[in-house]
Amino acid sequence: MTHDGFRVEPWSLHETRLDIDALPETESLFSLSNGFIGVRGNLDEGEPNGIPGSYLNGMYELRPLPSAESQFGTPESGQTIVNVTNGKLIRLLVDDEPFDVRYGTLLAHDRVLDFRDGVLRRTADWRSPAGRTVRVTSTRLVSFTHRSILAIMYEVEPLDGRVNVVVQSELVTNEAIPHIPGDPRSAAPTAFPLVAEQHVAKRRAALLIHRTQESGLRVGAGMEHVVDGTPALRVVTETFPDSARVNMVDVLEPQQRLRFVKFVAYGWSSRRSQPAIRDQVAAAILAARTAGWERLLAEQRQFLDDFWATGDVELDGDVELQQAVRFSQFQLLSAGARSEGRAIAAKGLTGSGYDGHCFWDTDFYVLPVLAYTFPNGAREALRWRHSTLPAAKVRARYLGLAGASFPWRTIHGEECSGYWPAGTAAFHINADIANAAIFYVRATDDQEFERDIGVELLVETARLWISLGHYDRHGRFRIDGVTGPDEYTAIVDNNLFTNLMARRNFVGAAEACERHPDRATALDVTSEETAAWRAAAERVVIPYDDELGVHQQSEGFTEHEVWDFAATRADQYPLMLHFPYFDLYRKQVVKQPDLVLAMLLFPDLFPPEQRARNFEYYERITVRDSSLSACVEAIAAADAGHLRLAFDYAAEAAFVDLHDLHSNTADGLHMASLAGTWLAFVMGFGGMRDLGESLTFNPRLPDELVRLAFTIRHRGRGLHVEVTGRTATYRLALGAEQIHITHHGEALMVGREPVVRPIPPLEARPAPTQPYGREPRHRRPT
Amino acid sequence: MTHDGFRVEPWSLHETRLDIDALPETESLFSLSNGFIGVRGNLDEGEPNGIPGSYLNGMYELRPLPSAESQFGTPESGQTIVNVTNGKLIRLLVDDEPFDVRYGTLLAHDRVLDFRDGVLRRTADWRSPAGRTVRVTSTRLVSFTHRSILAIMYEVEPLDGRVNVVVQSELVTNEAIPHIPGDPRSAAPTAFPLVAEQHVAKRRAALLIHRTQESGLRVGAGMEHVVDGTPALRVVTETFPDSARVNMVDVLEPQQRLRFVKFVAYGWSSRRSQPAIRDQVAAAILAARTAGWERLLAEQRQFLDDFWATGDVELDGDVELQQAVRFSQFQLLSAGARSEGRAIAAKGLTGSGYDGHCFWDTDFYVLPVLAYTFPNGAREALRWRHSTLPAAKVRARYLGLAGASFPWRTIHGEECSGYWPAGTAAFHINADIANAAIFYVRATDDQEFERDIGVELLVETARLWISLGHYDRHGRFRIDGVTGPDEYTAIVDNNLFTNLMARRNFVGAAEACERHPDRATALDVTSEETAAWRAAAERVVIPYDDELGVHQQSEGFTEHEVWDFAATRADQYPLMLHFPYFDLYRKQVVKQPDLVLAMLLFPDLFPPEQRARNFEYYERITVRDSSLSACVEAIAAADAGHLRLAFDYAAEAAFVDLHDLHSNTADGLHMASLAGTWLAFVMGFGGMRDLGESLTFNPRLPDELVRLAFTIRHRGRGLHVEVTGRTATYRLALGAEQIHITHHGEALMVGREPVVRPIPPLEARPAPTQPYGREPRHRRPT
Repeated sequence: MTHDGFRVEPWSLHETRLDIDALPETESLFSLSNGFIGVRGNLDEGEPNGIPGSYLNGMYELRPLPSAESQFGTPESGQTIVNVTNGKLIRLLVDDEPFDVRYGTLLAHDRVLDFRDGVLRRTADWRSPAGRTVRVTSTRLVSFTHRSILAIMYEVEPLDGRVNVVVQSELVTNEAIPHIPGDPRSAAPTAFPLVAEQHVAKRRAALLIHRTQESGLRVGAGMEHVVDGTPALRVVTETFPDSARVNMVDVLEPQQRLRFVKFVAYGWSSRRSQPAIRDQVAAAILAARTAGWERLLAEQRQFLDDFWATGDVELDGDVELQQAVRFSQFQLLSAGARSEGRAIAAKGLTGSGYDGHCFWDTDFYVLPVLAYTFPNGAREALRWRHSTLPAAKVRARYLGLAGASFPWRTIHGEECSGYWPAGTAAFHINADIANAAIFYVRATDDQEFERDIGVELLVETARLWISLGHYDRHGRFRIDGVTGPDEYTAIVDNNLFTNLMARRNFVGAAEACERHPDRATALDVTSEETAAWRAAAERVVIPYDDELGVHQQSEGFTEHEVWDFAATRADQYPLMLHFPYFDLYRKQVVKQPDLVLAMLLFPDLFPPEQRARNFEYYERITVRDSSLSACVEAIAAADAGHLRLAFDYAAEAAFVDLHDLHSNTADGLHMASLAGTWLAFVMGFGGMRDLGESLTFNPRLPDELVRLAFTIRHRGRGLHVEVTGRTATYRLALGAEQIHITHHGEALMVGREPVVRPIPPLEARPAPTQPYGREPRHRRPT
Repeated sequence: MTHDGFRVEPWSLHETRLDIDALPETESLFSLSNGFIGVRGNLDEGEPNGIPGSYLNGMYELRPLPSAESQFGTPESGQTIVNVTNGKLIRLLVDDEPFDVRYGTLLAHDRVLDFRDGVLRRTADWRSPAGRTVRVTSTRLVSFTHRSILAIMYEVEPLDGRVNVVVQSELVTNEAIPHIPGDPRSAAPTAFPLVAEQHVAKRRAALLIHRTQESGLRVGAGMEHVVDGTPALRVVTETFPDSARVNMVDVLEPQQRLRFVKFVAYGWSSRRSQPAIRDQVAAAILAARTAGWERLLAEQRQFLDDFWATGDVELDGDVELQQAVRFSQFQLLSAGARSEGRAIAAKGLTGSGYDGHCFWDTDFYVLPVLAYTFPNGAREALRWRHSTLPAAKVRARYLGLAGASFPWRTIHGEECSGYWPAGTAAFHINADIANAAIFYVRATDDQEFERDIGVELLVETARLWISLGHYDRHGRFRIDGVTGPDEYTAIVDNNLFTNLMARRNFVGAAEACERHPDRATALDVTSEETAAWRAAAERVVIPYDDELGVHQQSEGFTEHEVWDFAATRADQYPLMLHFPYFDLYRKQVVKQPDLVLAMLLFPDLFPPEQRARNFEYYERITVRDSSLSACVEAIAAADAGHLRLAFDYAAEAAFVDLHDLHSNTADGLHMASLAGTWLAFVMGFGGMRDLGESLTFNPRLPDELVRLAFTIRHRGRGLHVEVTGRTATYRLALGAEQIHITHHGEALMVGREPVVRPIPPLEARPAPTQPYGREPRHRRPT
């Protein structure tokens, strides 16, 4: 954890000591979200804080993207996530002293993020500077079932005598946000992004409506309180353009308490009027209040019980890792549960890192996990991509290309990358989206989705690739001058990952058109066009170094100088913050798996011996400066039989945020690495691959794990897989129809009865090596 | 010319009609400079104007270089040329009406830039809106012999009756400058760059001292007047922080005139105090005033007579081309005559284009011409480069490299490029500088220069290349991830031009160290180090496409898709303003010669047949979007025997500014293309090459030219070369020692007696083709 005041528990993240310096990170860890609303784990009373944060999916402001030398095609304005009206703020005065843990004495502190209840619970015993002691208890939830609702149960009681208390439950807009300059991963600051339009109060309720200045989005935030105090209780509500306060004044004797539930609702729109937004917020509050706090809690629990029934990954042998895996799944679900036609950003709604943008890793890392554990989440994220097709087509035309060119980073669909060699040039994003659609349909057989959304996504991206590539004089299909996943190499010819992904895109588009000929016709797809896609797929260049016997990440890559790792100090990582791109690009040094990633997706194209050789070659030059690295290396290491190494990488992926391994958890949680944790265990030690026709498993546990169990949702069924050191057990946990799988090459039909199969012994290979100083931390299971 | 009111004359640029819309361009054409001071050809009265401009070599202000995504190694602040105090402003009121050609009637207009007198003469007959007619005559010079002096003789006389005249001769600071956004070639605007420090007046003299805000440079501008008026003349001088005025009030009868000479002096420094600058300016004015107007004129003429004695290029057969060639030489001399330890910028001191920065083309195009026609200019520009070595060494360390890494663009020596793929990555700048030093020493045998400056430039750049390249597993020396001269391709492996230039750098450094072992020792050069340079030079990769039988501009280049020229409209050039770099980089389309340029420099490495094949291949894909193109293509075409094509290209080079072929002559003249004009005739039709041991000539005229004559300054001598259709005549025009040359392969010793040799017949090859629509204009000689 980011500090030592954490307790290892299987179903919660539990902090027993407050570390004020670690607030930026713990606020991210204790975030709550349902994919529409996200609130950071800020203390109820607002201060001290690391980074205040309340976000609504899709709410952004525009900011200029300056450039020293203007260039055709570079976007001039970008989108950045907005910290909206803070509805979680509850200030407390005890005998006129503000409850602030920096003053007085914090006698006890306890915070629990409960993965099954879906709430953040807090207890604080505090003695004021004047010596009065109170206990503050709060339970916060962002509802999975009421999409617009944040609710808080708040309670204060005296511990040592009568106290006068004033509670100010607030809405506050345009909070001051700290900014750390110099780190390109953090967000650009936008001061006072919201312009006040309306503020109204009625009894114990209040509403603020604001509008962003440039992007013209309107947001409403409302609150209402159900208060349970002493007969002395008095409530006064007041509002201002940028804030609203429900003041509760009470006198509490020992054993008495002031308790209330705060229902907060949000609504935003680019089109709806002030009255429409106001009514929408009011309706959401009314619905939540009518349901009541207990029912919100019960629904939350039920929603999560349903999820965990198939979404859990059980680990025996390492309790801290078990906790981390569940934390990952909980936060991933929180990001995707109710995004409903909006993006899942790189940091979800847990922070403003990367400006709140969505990148390729959502499509590549997050969506497959959702497809096999919470399919609706994957579908909604793809529906969002589909909704941005018009912008992607405009962008393609602007770039002189056919079809659709999706943005490297965006909130609303327009390209927001200010550095094209690692933005626009990373065209693989288009195939990543196509691939996510293919995976989603493979996992769900959702024909309606494929017809309405999938076909068009696949067709327009296939058209892009045809226009982007060309046939050389030997009839090979080349894709030149693009950037692959590894951001330490850019603008290269025939990036292997990109070429294979384009190949998948071509074949996937052709197959989808054959399955949905009416849609294909509507999109003007001819049989000549699908034939051209298949022809290009067959002729795509796959660069290989004959002398070294390894594939090349891109053409000529293995001819480059190898980075001088021995001369690179530990404090010079991540390299991009200490060396110019010019130096990184021209040398053999890999930020994050690229070719290795391709091998995981296309195992049929790389025989096992070749996979192992490639993995070992690239492992020597991969520095893991991206949080997208460790999970992939875990899978690749497991695939190549390096189980101990795979375990260390899986742990690294799982602890990216809990141990703040990339020093930027403060900006929000790394969604792709959270997803990667599931992938590391399921694809890594479970050896799961979905090659379309059936699921295959090559499970194999490292010595450090006693047991691994997980469930794959597959076309309405749930396949439960349990792996121990010696055997794997498969059974249908959900659904009726038997499922065809492969276990270490053996075809099996699995029904309700468990099928147990032995795990074949492993032929050990010499351990691969990493760049000097970049070996993964050797994990001792706890 | 930029409009049709120009007259073709052999020794001047002569305008007989004022086109107000063309002022931005004609101001550049009528610029005067001595390499220290530069003043645009703005009308004396200041308005109307296109772009007001008065520049001092090296005076810059800092400006932020913003970036949308911060990156290690990208400079955060850039230097931009400052429009300093305007000393050429002389306003006139005729019976209280301001003399302004936009009002009243301009009865006659005449402007002459005299290439032999080195002055700009103007006559204007103007009738005021009230009907009074006057003749205004001015002669302006920027002195070649008094480095700090601009002087103007101004005269007004009534043409039709008595007039009251007021003349305000001024100094004005912080003039408003127009800015055209969106063109990366223009300068970044800096409003009010100068902060007033002092303003003083004394009789008919005044002085302003200012300081730049960020760069902290102090500049003084002073003026003094020698006035010859009627007995009614009254003179009043007044000063303000940003301006000074000497007011001359007179009443002129017909035949009377008010005539005065204005001496303006400039001084600037980063270190000197206000009093020191003040005294420096006063001393310069005193010296000029003491010399007097007539002597300034005489010295100017003498300086130019000396230059033209060897600097002229005579053409028979095309009088307009003859004029253009002399214009080029005049402006080139003006840029380099008195730069004295300062840079020669891409636009000299004729405009603020490219922020007043110096690029590689000064070293590659301009310095060789100066070396053979005005060697001091070349030496001084190299002395400036040498003075920036400390900054270049710091930059190399910052980039993780050895030796010195010179900036892609700069005024003061620090890297000012905000787009590293076409800036920092264009490492060839370092070899270009080394090459200029090699050429200068070849041309002059200036051993003192080589010892004091050349050796260190060569050693530190050779060290850079050793650290930038690496040996691959086959023992070949590769230079990966750099950008060559062609800016439509970037970040490539083994750019042929760069590799060959590095090779020259290595050999040149080793040879210079052998000639100056004491300097080598002082620079810690060991025999192991020079051996390493020579070894790398021998093993440098030269990419070649065996199938096509042509060299590759960079590795893999000929595998790329060829740009779709047929689909590119005429109004889409220059391509960089209409297509993204991502698209340009990955296709076969060449902005400016790159490989072809290398062949001109290293003819011994490419047999004639291979040169012709390469030229024809690259000619098909070269769009000449850079003004650096046409001159090189002229030479290459002549070399390959395409004389008619060479003639068209030579004309294009010669008319780049006179016909505003790149639509940005308004921002200043293209120094490299002016130099390229000389290169096109001397290296193209003269077939001159300097391979170190001796000068070789393969002269051959196109049918359009009857005669070509020029002089090469070579090691204290002057070799006169005269070429006609059938013969070439060589004779020593300067110096005593015979000169060894080669004429079409025949070795000759040339002394004072003319040596006449026949020109062998040419074997015609099929004409090469250009991209659709990019054929050079077919020139009809005038």
